Amino acid sequence: MSSAAPPAWHAAIVADVDAHLARAVSEMDLPANLAQAVNYALLQGGKRLRPTLVVLSTEAVGARREQALPAAAAIEMIHAFSLVHDDLPAMDDDDLRRGQPTCHVRFGEAMAILAGDALATLPYLHLARCVEDAARRSRLIEELAAATLAMIAGQTLDTLGGFAESLSARQRLELTHRSKTGALIRSACRLGAISGGATESQLAALTAYGESIGLLFQVVDDILDVTQSAEHLGKRSNKDDAAGKLTYPSILGLDESRQLAERLCSQAIEAIEPFGHAADGLIALCRYMAVRTK
Amino acid sequence: MSSAAPPAWHAAIVADVDAHLARAVSEMDLPANLAQAVNYALLQGGKRLRPTLVVLSTEAVGARREQALPAAAAIEMIHAFSLVHDDLPAMDDDDLRRGQPTCHVRFGEAMAILAGDALATLPYLHLARCVEDAARRSRLIEELAAATLAMIAGQTLDTLGGFAESLSARQRLELTHRSKTGALIRSACRLGAISGGATESQLAALTAYGESIGLLFQVVDDILDVTQSAEHLGKRSNKDDAAGKLTYPSILGLDESRQLAERLCSQAIEAIEPFGHAADGLIALCRYMAVRTK
Repeated sequence: MSSAAPPAWHAAIVADVDAHLARAVSEMDLPANLAQAVNYALLQGGKRLRPTLVVLSTEAVGARREQALPAAAAIEMIHAFSLVHDDLPAMDDDDLRRGQPTCHVRFGEAMAILAGDALATLPYLHLARCVEDAARRSRLIEELAAATLAMIAGQTLDTLGGFAESLSARQRLELTHRSKTGALIRSACRLGAISGGATESQLAALTAYGESIGLLFQVVDDILDVTQSAEHLGKRSNKDDAAGKLTYPSILGLDESRQLAERLCSQAIEAIEPFGHAADGLIALCRYMAVRTK
Repeated sequence: MSSAAPPAWHAAIVADVDAHLARAVSEMDLPANLAQAVNYALLQGGKRLRPTLVVLSTEAVGARREQALPAAAAIEMIHAFSLVHDDLPAMDDDDLRRGQPTCHVRFGEAMAILAGDALATLPYLHLARCVEDAARRSRLIEELAAATLAMIAGQTLDTLGGFAESLSARQRLELTHRSKTGALIRSACRLGAISGGATESQLAALTAYGESIGLLFQVVDDILDVTQSAEHLGKRSNKDDAAGKLTYPSILGLDESRQLAERLCSQAIEAIEPFGHAADGLIALCRYMAVRTK
C-alpha cells in the first residue's frame, strides 16, 4: 500500500456509509427534483472523512459499525450541505467539486439553496428516527447541531471576517479553521464515541484526537492548494491565495506548515494510545491524512 | 376590539416569545456580524403566528406557557430561516419584508445565506438544551425536522415545480400550500400539544385545527396579495400573479376563495370544540386570521 493511498479497509466503510445514506434519502418524502439534487450533492463520492471517523471511533470503543451509521450519515449530510452553500456564486463561487460541476452549476442556484437547506435538516430527522436509545439520540443531536453552528461561524469568519480586532493573523487563521473544518472533524470523533457508548475518558481521548486531525486536515489542505493542480485535486486550486485568504503556507511558509502537520499527526496518535490496537484504523487514517496528495 | 386587529392578549405572547428568542441567540457563541444578521432576521417583529399557535396549543391542554417557549422559539427560527432564503435573488428576489429591507439587501447575499443556515440549525441545539423531558425533547425535534423538510419541499414545488404530471392545477396548488406554509402552521399546533403533554386525542384535535388554519392562512394570503397595496402589507404585493404562480383567486376566483376561507375557519373551530374555554385563544386567533387585512 502506497502511503499516499487511503487504507484498504476504507473502501468497505465508504460502501456501508453510502448505502446507508442512499436509503436515508429514499425514505424521506421529497419531490423528485429535490431528491435528485440532494442525491447529487451527497452521493458523488468524496473521501467520506467525517463518516469514516465516526465509524472508526465507534469501533475504537468496542461497539459495532451498525451503531455508528446513523451519526455517520448525519454528519456527511451536514458536510454536503456546507459544500453546496459554500460553492454558491455569492459565497466561494466554485464551478467544480470532486471533479464534477457543483450543485448550482448542474441544477441552478435556487435548487442548490433548497438542496442545501434539505441537507441541513435531514440529519435531525434521521437521528430522531434511527437512534433507539433516547439519551444517546439526544446527545448526538446536540453534538451535531453545536458543531454545525461552529462550522457556519467559521464560514462566516472565512468569507466575511468578523474577528475581534485584538487577534493576530495566526490567531485569526486558527480560529477560522478550528471552526470551519475543525469543528465537524472533531465532532465526527465525538459522535462516533457517543454512538458506541464511550466512557467520559474515552470521549475525551477521541475529542483530543479529533482536534489534532481537524487542524492537520486544514494545514494539509492549505499546502495542497498551493502545490497541486486543479486537475489533480478535482477542484479549483490556488484559490485561497487568489481570494487573499489567510492560509498556513502564507503565514508560516511551506516548510514550517509541513512540520506543523507532522506535529499534529503525532499529537493525534498519542491521544488515542490508550485504545491499543482498537485504534489502529484511526492511526492509519491520521498517517494517510498527513501524506495525502488530494 | 376591531375584528381586523389581533386579539389583545396576543401582544403578551409576542413579548414572551421575543424575550425568549433574544436570550436563545445571545446564549449561542456566534461571531458578532453573524449574530447581528440572525437577530435582524429574527427580531424584526412580524405576526409571530407560529409561536403564538405553539403557546395557545400548550395552554389549551392545560400546561403552563413556559413549557411552550422552547418549541415556540424553535419554530420561529425555522420560519425566519425560510424567509431569509426565500427572499434571496435566486429565489423570490424580494427587497422588502415586514416593511424593512430584506436580510440580503441589508447584509449582502453571503451573510443572508449563512444567517439562514444558522437559523436552520439553532432550533435543534435550543430544543436539545432547553427541554428537560427526554422523550418529549426527541418528539419535538422529530416533529420540527419533518415539518421543515415538508416546508422545503413546498418551496421547491412553488419555485421550481416537480409535480407528478397527473395532478390538476387545484391539486398542485393545495399540495404546494399544504407543504410550503401549511406544514409549519400545522406543526406549530402539534409542537404546542407535545410541549404540554397532550393525550393522543388532544394531539389529533390540534392537528386537525392546524391543518385547517394552515390552509386558511394561505387562502387569505393569496386574497390579500391581489387586493392590498404593498405599502399596507409591508412587502411586495401582486407578486404571485406577476410571477405566474398558482393562487386561490386565480383558480377559484375571489368570491369562492372567500367562501373557502370561511369554511376552513368553521372546520378549525369545530376541531377544537372538545377543549371548551381552554381553546378560546385558538378560536379568537382563527377568527382574526379569517378577517386580517395584512
